[in-house]
Amino acid sequence: MTTDQLNHCHDTIRPHIHRTPVLFSTQLNELAGCILMFKCENFQKMGAFKMRGATYAITQLPEELCNKGVVTHSSGNFAQALSLAAQSLGVQAYIVMPENAPEVKIAAVTGYGGQVILCAPTMEQREASALKIQQETGATFIHPSNDAAVITGQGTVAKELLEDYPDLDIIVSPVGGGGLIGGTILAVEAHPKKVQVIGAEPAEADDAYRSLLSGKIEKNRTTNTIADGLKTMLGDINFPLIQRGVQKIVRIEEKEIVDSMRLIWERMKIIVEPSCAVTLAAVLKEKEFFAGKKVGLLISGGNVDLSKLPF
Amino acid sequence: MTTDQLNHCHDTIRPHIHRTPVLFSTQLNELAGCILMFKCENFQKMGAFKMRGATYAITQLPEELCNKGVVTHSSGNFAQALSLAAQSLGVQAYIVMPENAPEVKIAAVTGYGGQVILCAPTMEQREASALKIQQETGATFIHPSNDAAVITGQGTVAKELLEDYPDLDIIVSPVGGGGLIGGTILAVEAHPKKVQVIGAEPAEADDAYRSLLSGKIEKNRTTNTIADGLKTMLGDINFPLIQRGVQKIVRIEEKEIVDSMRLIWERMKIIVEPSCAVTLAAVLKEKEFFAGKKVGLLISGGNVDLSKLPF
Repeated sequence: MTTDQLNHCHDTIRPHIHRTPVLFSTQLNELAGCILMFKCENFQKMGAFKMRGATYAITQLPEELCNKGVVTHSSGNFAQALSLAAQSLGVQAYIVMPENAPEVKIAAVTGYGGQVILCAPTMEQREASALKIQQETGATFIHPSNDAAVITGQGTVAKELLEDYPDLDIIVSPVGGGGLIGGTILAVEAHPKKVQVIGAEPAEADDAYRSLLSGKIEKNRTTNTIADGLKTMLGDINFPLIQRGVQKIVRIEEKEIVDSMRLIWERMKIIVEPSCAVTLAAVLKEKEFFAGKKVGLLISGGNVDLSKLPF
Repeated sequence: MTTDQLNHCHDTIRPHIHRTPVLFSTQLNELAGCILMFKCENFQKMGAFKMRGATYAITQLPEELCNKGVVTHSSGNFAQALSLAAQSLGVQAYIVMPENAPEVKIAAVTGYGGQVILCAPTMEQREASALKIQQETGATFIHPSNDAAVITGQGTVAKELLEDYPDLDIIVSPVGGGGLIGGTILAVEAHPKKVQVIGAEPAEADDAYRSLLSGKIEKNRTTNTIADGLKTMLGDINFPLIQRGVQKIVRIEEKEIVDSMRLIWERMKIIVEPSCAVTLAAVLKEKEFFAGKKVGLLISGGNVDLSKLPF
């Protein structure tokens, strides 16, 4: 990955994404003892950063493949992201979703022009259904996080943040499937000043923490977390990046996630997902490490079911 | 009121307030059939526009009165606003609050340096307690909405909006005590292009609607509304302004307030109070009137008890 590639990616997707704002809170700075910069991808199109990687991945396909469409399996933000990105680019998206996915998520995908294929809620069935679609339609499979173009696209979040605030000391990224933190490492490596990358993940889904320790990709032992975007595991494309560029991963308890989410809602008046509340929680948990630093927090998304809030 | 006065006010309070952003939503534009510009005072200091008027009112006092402090009665945003504004300006604030006010609101006032005086929860007791404070301390009483300086201060919300978007056709303001909509009229009158001012208030607290009809200040018949900032009635200073400058007032049902608030939360990922959700509800209720227009919505605040959400 060179700076040129990241620049090319950003130029390519720019017409299809929002450049999201960076927000601050004096109160949260005082509470944290450092200067926090919230990069607000909750204001991104479809409500999450995943729009970036999905868009870039589709634009990298040759035209004859675009004509046959794209397929993925996801019940989360990537399902909506690939649908909206495909719609923006005039491509058909096929989305394999578990049959127990919430109505509202299925409706969102359909609303963005995605064609939903329901399957039994196991990873085997999801993969089998996606493979069947590929065989029947010739659509290209795009993985939500373990795909080089997707990772590069997600890197534009930190790229924009560093363009706005080049003197950041640290960026804290949530760790789920590894796409966002992987892209963040690419952006930091392209930046002239040294910036540390810290991961934050639920203690209840600490595969990345353990993977860094063991040196190989570990599975989650539990995924009993409110941070539903962080239940996925790393992949062979993003794991080497993470090994190379992540200083450490902070594990966050469930109560800390909810408290941190509530703090952001109450003090900043913005709606953020539990999956990105782990970033502020990591700073509050390890105050000494972050003391006095300029810290960018990647607020990955704002898609929350308001009928099922934890407070 | 001249343009000079409004400019003087804005220059005076500028160091103590945020210039809040104006946000948009393509999805809500499509739903409403017009172009909506959300002036986000939920991002104002202490979470509401009331910071503006409170600050300006204090700055207009002579120094010997400032030294004796300021007093108001409020259990809402003005209590916090006067406390924080006084703190910013090095003045003591005395806040009379009903003894059944939520702990969190009392704590917020105290946190901003306000001295809380509890009293029985009737308007008579509130006024008597405030009078007693005035007599004992020499503090100056500042009314939350029926005060010329407060009204001028609130006018800087629409002034900023019109500076950013001078070609607006309509501004929709919530109507509670009349301070915000009164100030909005001053800002519109100082603007070179004709801009209509529309009020929005709960049908359950429709004193302003009936006052405009009858030509005199009417009391609320009920205040059984979730929009707790809009239960107050108009005053003799702002009512003539409202008679002069408001085209009409749209009355909003409780379900419409909640639906509109939820729409803003879900689509825009920002936290807004029920009291300002009436503005979007008014547009959705009278779509033909607003069709194709450029419409500014005054999002007055974002102070919501997350433990008591209506969804």
